[in-house]
Amino acid sequence: MTNVGWEVMTSIGIIGSQGRMGHALVGAIGEQEDLRHAGGVDQDDDFAALLAHSDVLVDFSSPDGLSQRLDLCAEAGKPVLVGTTGLEPAHHLSIDAAAQAIAVLQTGNTSLGVNMLAALVKEAATRLGDDWDIEIVEMHHRHKVDAPSGTALLLGEAAAKGRNVTLADQSERGRDGQTGARQKGAIGFASLRGGSVAGDHQVIFAADEERIELGHRAENRMIFARGAIKAAQWLRGQPAGRYDMTDMLGLD
Amino acid sequence: MTNVGWEVMTSIGIIGSQGRMGHALVGAIGEQEDLRHAGGVDQDDDFAALLAHSDVLVDFSSPDGLSQRLDLCAEAGKPVLVGTTGLEPAHHLSIDAAAQAIAVLQTGNTSLGVNMLAALVKEAATRLGDDWDIEIVEMHHRHKVDAPSGTALLLGEAAAKGRNVTLADQSERGRDGQTGARQKGAIGFASLRGGSVAGDHQVIFAADEERIELGHRAENRMIFARGAIKAAQWLRGQPAGRYDMTDMLGLD
Amino acid sequence: MTNVGWEVMTSIGIIGSQGRMGHALVGAIGEQEDLRHAGGVDQDDDFAALLAHSDVLVDFSSPDGLSQRLDLCAEAGKPVLVGTTGLEPAHHLSIDAAAQAIAVLQTGNTSLGVNMLAALVKEAATRLGDDWDIEIVEMHHRHKVDAPSGTALLLGEAAAKGRNVTLADQSERGRDGQTGARQKGAIGFASLRGGSVAGDHQVIFAADEERIELGHRAENRMIFARGAIKAAQWLRGQPAGRYDMTDMLGLD
Amino acid sequence: MTNVGWEVMTSIGIIGSQGRMGHALVGAIGEQEDLRHAGGVDQDDDFAALLAHSDVLVDFSSPDGLSQRLDLCAEAGKPVLVGTTGLEPAHHLSIDAAAQAIAVLQTGNTSLGVNMLAALVKEAATRLGDDWDIEIVEMHHRHKVDAPSGTALLLGEAAAKGRNVTLADQSERGRDGQTGARQKGAIGFASLRGGSVAGDHQVIFAADEERIELGHRAENRMIFARGAIKAAQWLRGQPAGRYDMTDMLGLD
Repeated sequence: MTNVGWEVMTSIGIIGSQGRMGHALVGAIGEQEDLRHAGGVDQDDDFAALLAHSDVLVDFSSPDGLSQRLDLCAEAGKPVLVGTTGLEPAHHLSIDAAAQAIAVLQTGNTSLGVNMLAALVKEAATRLGDDWDIEIVEMHHRHKVDAPSGTALLLGEAAAKGRNVTLADQSERGRDGQTGARQKGAIGFASLRGGSVAGDHQVIFAADEERIELGHRAENRMIFARGAIKAAQWLRGQPAGRYDMTDMLGLD
Repeated sequence: MTNVGWEVMTSIGIIGSQGRMGHALVGAIGEQEDLRHAGGVDQDDDFAALLAHSDVLVDFSSPDGLSQRLDLCAEAGKPVLVGTTGLEPAHHLSIDAAAQAIAVLQTGNTSLGVNMLAALVKEAATRLGDDWDIEIVEMHHRHKVDAPSGTALLLGEAAAKGRNVTLADQSERGRDGQTGARQKGAIGFASLRGGSVAGDHQVIFAADEERIELGHRAENRMIFARGAIKAAQWLRGQPAGRYDMTDMLGLD
Repeated sequence: MTNVGWEVMTSIGIIGSQGRMGHALVGAIGEQEDLRHAGGVDQDDDFAALLAHSDVLVDFSSPDGLSQRLDLCAEAGKPVLVGTTGLEPAHHLSIDAAAQAIAVLQTGNTSLGVNMLAALVKEAATRLGDDWDIEIVEMHHRHKVDAPSGTALLLGEAAAKGRNVTLADQSERGRDGQTGARQKGAIGFASLRGGSVAGDHQVIFAADEERIELGHRAENRMIFARGAIKAAQWLRGQPAGRYDMTDMLGLD
Repeated sequence: MTNVGWEVMTSIGIIGSQGRMGHALVGAIGEQEDLRHAGGVDQDDDFAALLAHSDVLVDFSSPDGLSQRLDLCAEAGKPVLVGTTGLEPAHHLSIDAAAQAIAVLQTGNTSLGVNMLAALVKEAATRLGDDWDIEIVEMHHRHKVDAPSGTALLLGEAAAKGRNVTLADQSERGRDGQTGARQKGAIGFASLRGGSVAGDHQVIFAADEERIELGHRAENRMIFARGAIKAAQWLRGQPAGRYDMTDMLGLD
């Protein structure tokens, strides 16, 4: 192993280190010799100590207490990546507030591939008229408790942005029974669950007699952990502000 | 063109001749020189005349009045293929009653491919334990008004039969929001709508780290019309009784 | 039917009217009341008469005689769409020469969807590094005599352009036997044949642990015929020059 | 941890323990407390010692020296699973000879899913006439050096067996250039390479206007290792004879 000087080491603190994603993050840190795992917390009481030992924080825990943690990061001047799903509007306000003082990156998916796909979906939605119906289908493992996935929603947002509409106004979710014909301009969602699937997504643009299908397949959870760690390293060097993965990847 | 004797001609009466499927059926009859289109009805009042001119009837209309039509077919001794979807238990009793007197074939899908797929799904469901989660996803054109498709339900029935369970007890349909983890033994359904898709179906068996995917794609509606006409020809020669496509195809 | 004035009618001449694509083109002309089928030729001797009666020509015949036909179109001042595949460099020189005098649109695929897909593939290839392996797989009906399809090559060209490489230098085609490991930077092609498939294409970008899959499905040949007719109408109003579908679709 | 008696432990010897598959096999043994890794060899000179310490052998090494190893296993009365690919007819004769004295299981793929798929493919090929064209497409990681994959060939054999033909007579491999139209009855193969794909396979039955698609996806290599270890445990209790995975899985 080569000697790595202290100055280039990045010490990463993990919030929510006991879950499946927490374990994957620790594993991803271990793969790189210029990274150090500063420790992890699963309860707020030792958060101050973690902050002191970290150059940057990564939070894949839960929305509970997120606003307080953001305040503490801002006070300590430590950048933070927020990968937690299920955020409410109030959480987004807290993120905006913290981003006045520190760099904050919030995202629903940290893989390069998914963010690339979202950019392509936005492009296609911009250029194809609304006689191209948009459908989004995803498959995840049998333990997932919500539907559609956060990534499916991220892709739906990209499509809505491309069409210059609001996703909430156009979503068709959970079709079952006498649904009536499809609404023009709708963006449909469907969710499959089973086995140990890490995450497959497909966005379909369907017109008369032809379809364009844009998809992504993740082989395992490590792809998301590695993307998060890479983004955290990048985030350490950024000025205060709110970022997403497209800023880091230069996709927009 | 070869000379076709009268004795081998089959005269087919179509009930519901004005809809899209009705037009496809007339087209399919026109493709074969040993077939004759006896005429079509869309209202019951001229049904007696149609019966008199037909060797066999094909009904893709609606559940309304089906029981009366079956009675009249039975009285007239004319076999009938029922491809209408949305049947209630009372309609199935009428079919059973008519099948005492005439040959009746009832099915949710008349293509060879879909019925072959159903046989394979049943086989796989029989042999694979319930640590293989079963999911069924289908896509149809934007005009379809119900979900899941009749064919998706036919495939679900095949899976349930293979597992020796009742489909109604195991269905997970229309997943949306906080669904909780997948139930062990569930059979999931998801429906996509868009463009002019004639009908795509896929049955996924998902275990830890591997998936089996069994699917069917129809390029257009004619495949179903031709399958129905072929089945009607076969049905003409059968003794009284209730049949489905597997009887005709020799798939079971 | 509304009264359509003579001045807005477009009279379209078809070169190669007896093949499958020729029949589809005639059908597509018949669908629009502002179009007229000027006639078709399958041999060169009556080409002058066809030219005289046409506002614009559509050529899906064969590379044989293409250069002479282009000369005659240029002399007569009639724009022409060239959809013929299997062109050699000499044909492209003839197209360039004719484009000095008339509008010429040359393309491997006339559907909006495929050309949109090509634009997305180019974009993805530009932004993703060459640790994303590119593979292109296509399926066509059992009668197709060459592989890969012209559309697969069009997609390969888009990928090569995005990466700033020459497709001919990077192609891996017809893998079979002891191939050795994949070359870094290669663009792979695979061809499936069977049934009556009108044309399915998929471009796969495969990195470690994730894949992006960008595809197109055509339900039938009419989609290509309608796209060609629409492009021919557009071409009638263009100044001399060489065009492709992206010019007409505004995709680039 | 429960106390596991010595008598139910199975000691497994691995031939070819240094490769990727070797490491996966050691990992799979470590997951079960009733298994013991007897050691591994990569050269023949310490094979006798390995034999003495093993209840059953697993060989994923190479065809070189396979016949000698089979002789030694037979002499020692130890059953052996042969997962090595690239076998010649002479190796199969050696396997048959050893199977007079010991239980030998030889297979191209040890996952339950792939063997289930092969059974379904055979069934479909038996029942569908040869107007259903059969195509097999597979994708594997960029390091794979041969095409098509052993599993694709296993699936092709299943299809050929179902049709009662010889695969070698019917294969269409590596299509490229002016191929001419598809041969009736052919079984086509196409191979994609890229990224880290563990192994995806799809068998397509394509008729006029419809397709049946039967596929399998492996998320990682462990699925094959676990299948091999499970089969080795089963093999320990079997009488002398030659077996394949369908015997163990009860699939035929």
